[in-house]
Amino acid sequence: MHGPGSQLIGNTDSAEGTQTFQAFNPQQQEWIPQPFREATAEEIDRAVTLAATAFSTYKKTAASQRAAFLRAIADGIVALGDELINTASAESGLPLTRLQGERDRTTGQLRLFAELITEGSWVNARIDNGTPDVRQMQLPLGVIGVFGASNFPLAFSVAGGDTAAALAAGCTVVCKAHPAHPHTSHLVAGAIRTAAQKTGMPDGVFSLLHGATIATGQQLAVHPLLSAIAFTGSFRGGKALYDTATRRTVPIPVFAEMGSVNPVFFLPGILQEKGETLATQFLQSLTMGTGQFCTNPGLFVTQAGNDAFMETLQKNIAALPAGCMLTPGILEAYNKGLGQLQHAGARVLGKAQAASHQAAPALLQVSVQQALADPALCHEVFGPSSLHIRADSPEELYRLAAALEGQLTATIHGTEEDLRQHAELVDILREKAGRIVINGFPTGVAVNHAMVHGGPWPATTPAAGTSVGTAAIYRFCRPVCYQDFPAYLLPPELQNSNPLNIWRLINGQFSKDALS
Amino acid sequence: MHGPGSQLIGNTDSAEGTQTFQAFNPQQQEWIPQPFREATAEEIDRAVTLAATAFSTYKKTAASQRAAFLRAIADGIVALGDELINTASAESGLPLTRLQGERDRTTGQLRLFAELITEGSWVNARIDNGTPDVRQMQLPLGVIGVFGASNFPLAFSVAGGDTAAALAAGCTVVCKAHPAHPHTSHLVAGAIRTAAQKTGMPDGVFSLLHGATIATGQQLAVHPLLSAIAFTGSFRGGKALYDTATRRTVPIPVFAEMGSVNPVFFLPGILQEKGETLATQFLQSLTMGTGQFCTNPGLFVTQAGNDAFMETLQKNIAALPAGCMLTPGILEAYNKGLGQLQHAGARVLGKAQAASHQAAPALLQVSVQQALADPALCHEVFGPSSLHIRADSPEELYRLAAALEGQLTATIHGTEEDLRQHAELVDILREKAGRIVINGFPTGVAVNHAMVHGGPWPATTPAAGTSVGTAAIYRFCRPVCYQDFPAYLLPPELQNSNPLNIWRLINGQFSKDALS
Repeated sequence: MHGPGSQLIGNTDSAEGTQTFQAFNPQQQEWIPQPFREATAEEIDRAVTLAATAFSTYKKTAASQRAAFLRAIADGIVALGDELINTASAESGLPLTRLQGERDRTTGQLRLFAELITEGSWVNARIDNGTPDVRQMQLPLGVIGVFGASNFPLAFSVAGGDTAAALAAGCTVVCKAHPAHPHTSHLVAGAIRTAAQKTGMPDGVFSLLHGATIATGQQLAVHPLLSAIAFTGSFRGGKALYDTATRRTVPIPVFAEMGSVNPVFFLPGILQEKGETLATQFLQSLTMGTGQFCTNPGLFVTQAGNDAFMETLQKNIAALPAGCMLTPGILEAYNKGLGQLQHAGARVLGKAQAASHQAAPALLQVSVQQALADPALCHEVFGPSSLHIRADSPEELYRLAAALEGQLTATIHGTEEDLRQHAELVDILREKAGRIVINGFPTGVAVNHAMVHGGPWPATTPAAGTSVGTAAIYRFCRPVCYQDFPAYLLPPELQNSNPLNIWRLINGQFSKDALS
Repeated sequence: MHGPGSQLIGNTDSAEGTQTFQAFNPQQQEWIPQPFREATAEEIDRAVTLAATAFSTYKKTAASQRAAFLRAIADGIVALGDELINTASAESGLPLTRLQGERDRTTGQLRLFAELITEGSWVNARIDNGTPDVRQMQLPLGVIGVFGASNFPLAFSVAGGDTAAALAAGCTVVCKAHPAHPHTSHLVAGAIRTAAQKTGMPDGVFSLLHGATIATGQQLAVHPLLSAIAFTGSFRGGKALYDTATRRTVPIPVFAEMGSVNPVFFLPGILQEKGETLATQFLQSLTMGTGQFCTNPGLFVTQAGNDAFMETLQKNIAALPAGCMLTPGILEAYNKGLGQLQHAGARVLGKAQAASHQAAPALLQVSVQQALADPALCHEVFGPSSLHIRADSPEELYRLAAALEGQLTATIHGTEEDLRQHAELVDILREKAGRIVINGFPTGVAVNHAMVHGGPWPATTPAAGTSVGTAAIYRFCRPVCYQDFPAYLLPPELQNSNPLNIWRLINGQFSKDALS
């Protein structure tokens, strides 16, 4: 790269912007020399317009072609080798091993979506062949604006789950790179471009735009040819996009994953049984990746009889290693968040030592009464801290659970007896979270068919979506019904002979049979 | 009923409002004597609060219990007999036979949803039984606010498709009756109440509120315990609810079906083959129910060679019978809409005679250039009028199709040769409409598994939903994931033994098998 980094608009580099920004190395505490240009309004328009043109071709590709494209992206990411991992580590401060794992997750996601669309039943074909003859399937929405996340520079960024799901569905993508890792984004976008060229995809099926200001994202969000937005990040950022998108002349859906506090409930029996072990495991989950997971357990609730558990927590928290955070801004927000909690009446149970550029793991505490009176106490503080609340009775526990906002996850630790006695807790939590975990920890989100990474507001914008797992594809689709179509105009998925051999709902019955 | 009509809040009548309104008989041109009370803010709050309490019980009912409830509603509607049909006819001006058919459709919908949930596979159970073990299914959203439509006093109103789908999913319902037919609404709500009591459903599973002002609907829409809104009506009404719901502190989804012009494309070959027949059929579709269908063909496009077709249209339009409309307000809007079209440059091709209280079927015409320059020409005028546009070439036809807004339906008439030659038209229209019809007419929406009654904005708010057919149930659900749950805490749909014998996606494969 010569001169500041450019936009990748389809197959063409574009370097029209004069405003530049730099990434920061949080481990080394220094700016990374090579700057990147902010995309201009014209470049944003060009990327979306090209993506809309590309969509008219790309939407007609066979699933096998799109699968080859996704697999070529995965291969290309692997081929980037250590350069990608080193670059991502320099820009995020995340350890190499973590990023190697994240790369596997990223390529695994791409291959899983390739497999999904190759099998083909995901289109939810429905046929009622009476009078009239009506046939329905899921079709791609159009151009998707993907906003990369700061905390997963690979798996939730340029070629992350949103991009993989959108491309799998048959949508084209304009990605806004997270400004914390432009070099990583540039490398991955290059791999996508090469894969698109190798597999014969239309120019503009994917574009990458850079920008460190709010303007870039907003200009993308209001573009009339954009069909939907996928975002992973802060509540503030997601809400701003949601407000913009819902106020357009033609509103578009925003699938924003905005994080949560992921409450963990420890029931009395299990704390008595293995309080110390759970305390150790909890601190591991809390401080993994310096607490920078959307599913980080930022709130935990106990109910009586938890002396060993609380003692272990308090004893061990001080000795935990501090870590650097993704960006100076995120570290500042973490420290500010802790200060606000204390100002609002939270008591510090324990805190680790940390250098000024690091985040100190911390445990705080409030009473049930405080939490119920001031919902802000239960808002997310992104980083390695958790707020403890002690309930005096099951009823108090339920009241607290019922007062929670929407969450990505909610977790219960309990013995069989605990769980049977607190069955109502599951009932309450299923209204609060997209995923309920029993005797585990919320960090670590499996990528498969059954995963839900989403939840009621403010965890995500529409609770009907997931941003992890194969069901994520449905965010970028809508059903279309073909009435009384002659055979030669029907897509293969809906033809009588079922040439793709997919599962279909025929007059209400699942079947792979052909129709005569 | 003594005194003004009341709200039905669960099992209790409530008559606190002092403001009243009356329905109007559009055939007789007279006010219907018995007034109805506007719901007060307190009554609205009470209905939603009771519905939220009822939800905590109702969500746990077995599908078989909810199916019995839905069937009891259908039976109750049938048992209302002629009184219901006569009342609906008086309030809507719709003929008795049409309303008898609509009653069948309404009870048919209720029974279809009963069947769907009895079979059970609709919950989309997904199981990945690795490490971790994650299991997903669709769960009900909560309390749904249903806004009845004016044009289907039975099938899209109190016990219409929205209510049936929401109750089937396990949601509770607070319905805002359309003020044009409060007596009809009261009768149907009474049948729902009786059915709920007979089948042991919780008090508040359904409530009916009345209101002729915008305030009632707005107060319902902002209630913090409401989870989603379903609406069928005008763009203005739907958009107002959408704006309110998306600006709440906790935004909620709005599934608004706001109508469209349902363009019909007549290709040259078929017009040559049977132009006169098509002209007659088109006018039938246009004037059915005085043009008061969401799927009424308000726009039609021809391309050359259409003399007999256009002549037949122009010859026959003048002789078509005028009809009364649902309300004086709707008639006024129709006449105003026609005036605006003419003012904007549309030429009147022909118009029937009509008394002052009736709507005259009308055909208007603009050029492609006019339509492209002024998109307002292609906006819906609710009633029995249609706007003709003549394209001079396939390219002009495509340009016009590509410039259309989102639609519920789009229709093409063509011979096999026409359709093969204009394949691009299907490609364009699939981005524009929820349903594409070949050689048929858009009016008449089949209720089955494959139907889509929805479409891109402004036809509906989110294009991912349908308000007709069994897929309508998904608007009122969200996926929830159970991670590492012990067997005794799992819902039956996700238990290893598959006690409900439903189709499930097991590690990516559809199966009815039990897991060991």
